[in-house]
Amino acid sequence: MTRELADRLALTDLVAQYAIAVDRRDELALSALFTPDARLVQPTGLVRRGKDPVLDGATAVVEGVLGAVAHLHSTRHVVSQQLVDVTGDTARGEVYCDAHHVYATESGHRDYIVSIRYLDEYRRDEDAWRIAQRELVVDFTDDREIALLG
Amino acid sequence: MTRELADRLALTDLVAQYAIAVDRRDELALSALFTPDARLVQPTGLVRRGKDPVLDGATAVVEGVLGAVAHLHSTRHVVSQQLVDVTGDTARGEVYCDAHHVYATESGHRDYIVSIRYLDEYRRDEDAWRIAQRELVVDFTDDREIALLG
Amino acid sequence: MTRELADRLALTDLVAQYAIAVDRRDELALSALFTPDARLVQPTGLVRRGKDPVLDGATAVVEGVLGAVAHLHSTRHVVSQQLVDVTGDTARGEVYCDAHHVYATESGHRDYIVSIRYLDEYRRDEDAWRIAQRELVVDFTDDREIALLG
Repeated sequence: MTRELADRLALTDLVAQYAIAVDRRDELALSALFTPDARLVQPTGLVRRGKDPVLDGATAVVEGVLGAVAHLHSTRHVVSQQLVDVTGDTARGEVYCDAHHVYATESGHRDYIVSIRYLDEYRRDEDAWRIAQRELVVDFTDDREIALLG
Repeated sequence: MTRELADRLALTDLVAQYAIAVDRRDELALSALFTPDARLVQPTGLVRRGKDPVLDGATAVVEGVLGAVAHLHSTRHVVSQQLVDVTGDTARGEVYCDAHHVYATESGHRDYIVSIRYLDEYRRDEDAWRIAQRELVVDFTDDREIALLG
Repeated sequence: MTRELADRLALTDLVAQYAIAVDRRDELALSALFTPDARLVQPTGLVRRGKDPVLDGATAVVEGVLGAVAHLHSTRHVVSQQLVDVTGDTARGEVYCDAHHVYATESGHRDYIVSIRYLDEYRRDEDAWRIAQRELVVDFTDDREIALLG
């Protein structure tokens, strides 16, 4: 039973590590969270014109994710509940996340919030769990003025 | 100690399963999360005129919860921290949850957000933890325009 | 491995207990969560004029935290992901939290939301984990009208 609990917590940590690695724009940390053949599936409505919504391979995924936030002031990925279903060395999961994208305007800053559910597939490689596939489902978005601390 | 950890995580999963089952409007999954004699206690301010704020029995609870969201475009229940106190086969818990209720307007969509604390009682039946009583305390509500992805 | 999992969950519970103790304004519960020599480091932008942003000692920390919310209608601390790194009887952690501060206005109520990352140091004392240092990093703030249930 201990193995089940360890797997369960490792997968919770994995999705927290993803969120924090993106917010830190930490390419090295982020790369370690994906299997080499990882796939990212994004809704076309989230992807800039001319960009492919499906990215294949850890390198392309990490470049795509960090490239999409490079022009922003900052991001804040807030991770809530995760449901996981583990079968041996693979697992499926659903994760709720509000992704905040802070950008400067002429008069201050605004936050573009994307309320996401990640539909994930995880795989255990050499004793570490990694993301093998992540599909983003967007429930809704919001755009609002925010303030930075003076 | 492993049993304590397993109970703790099972109760975290239980409240995540509730949130996701409501958002999926999955009657079967939702029914499995309540004890047969489960009770739901809602604030009168949340209940439509003529509806009873207290629902008794798993069938009434599930009908009440899904009936209250049937007219909406969608819901999104975002679950944050949970504190639990386990005593043998029963437990008490407090859970923070923001319940988003998305509805269509003439010009787009709006989100009625209810910031809830669930005061829960759980019971272990035949090796699965279920919700025996759930009381909703509402800290505050908000109503704002949102956008769906094109 | 069970000890690792127990530590991991104890630290999750610790930060949830902090949030709920502040929201309940429960001085006794809050005091029990800090080591006697605990330190709180706040951004100057969050601290009222004349107040020290750095508080030393559990008593000063608890007085400072509860003093800062005493004038409010209520608070709601919503805790999301936590990453922890345990080394023996000490640990470091980063925790995402949205702190809601509800206050009355002439026409109703407003919510001042502070989107925080806590940079924490924890220490195990007499078999319980406590907060030894907590530094608040503020990503952004928002101030919006909200409603209380009638």
